[in-house]
Amino acid sequence: MPRGFGRLVKARIFVTLKPGVLDPQGQAIARALGSLGFEGVSGVRQGKLIELELTQSDAEQARAEVETMCEKLLANTVIERYAIELEG
Amino acid sequence: MPRGFGRLVKARIFVTLKPGVLDPQGQAIARALGSLGFEGVSGVRQGKLIELELTQSDAEQARAEVETMCEKLLANTVIERYAIELEG
Repeated sequence: MPRGFGRLVKARIFVTLKPGVLDPQGQAIARALGSLGFEGVSGVRQGKLIELELTQSDAEQARAEVETMCEKLLANTVIERYAIELEG
Repeated sequence: MPRGFGRLVKARIFVTLKPGVLDPQGQAIARALGSLGFEGVSGVRQGKLIELELTQSDAEQARAEVETMCEKLLANTVIERYAIELEG
């Protein structure tokens, strides 16, 4: 299939801090929620959500490509883990 | 049911820029992916993922509470929209 005629695959990538890694943003949110009067909130963690579209007709290949993107650029795998969702 | 004995509900909140709102972070990622040799990538958008736990036995009420958190603190509803996922 010539390039540009592949299906458009939509990928959602969730990048979150590994358990045990300090999350100052999450702590700030937890404190702010507390001071706004929300009770019983715990374990607040903030991560990143990256959405992108790929011209790639093969789902397996699309996932492999997005994994490489995560390893090389999107996640810092020392302190972060990532999850990938594909659709389309 | 006395407080502290409610189920622990896990909430995932996805905060993304509304369509049409400029996303410099997304653009930076798109450029970086391009310079790393990834081709056919488009529509890169970066959002936030917030995970938290609620002591709340009622799912309806938990969702309503998280919605209020989004409106009041977690999202800037002028330029961002949010989606909520509950589990547990």
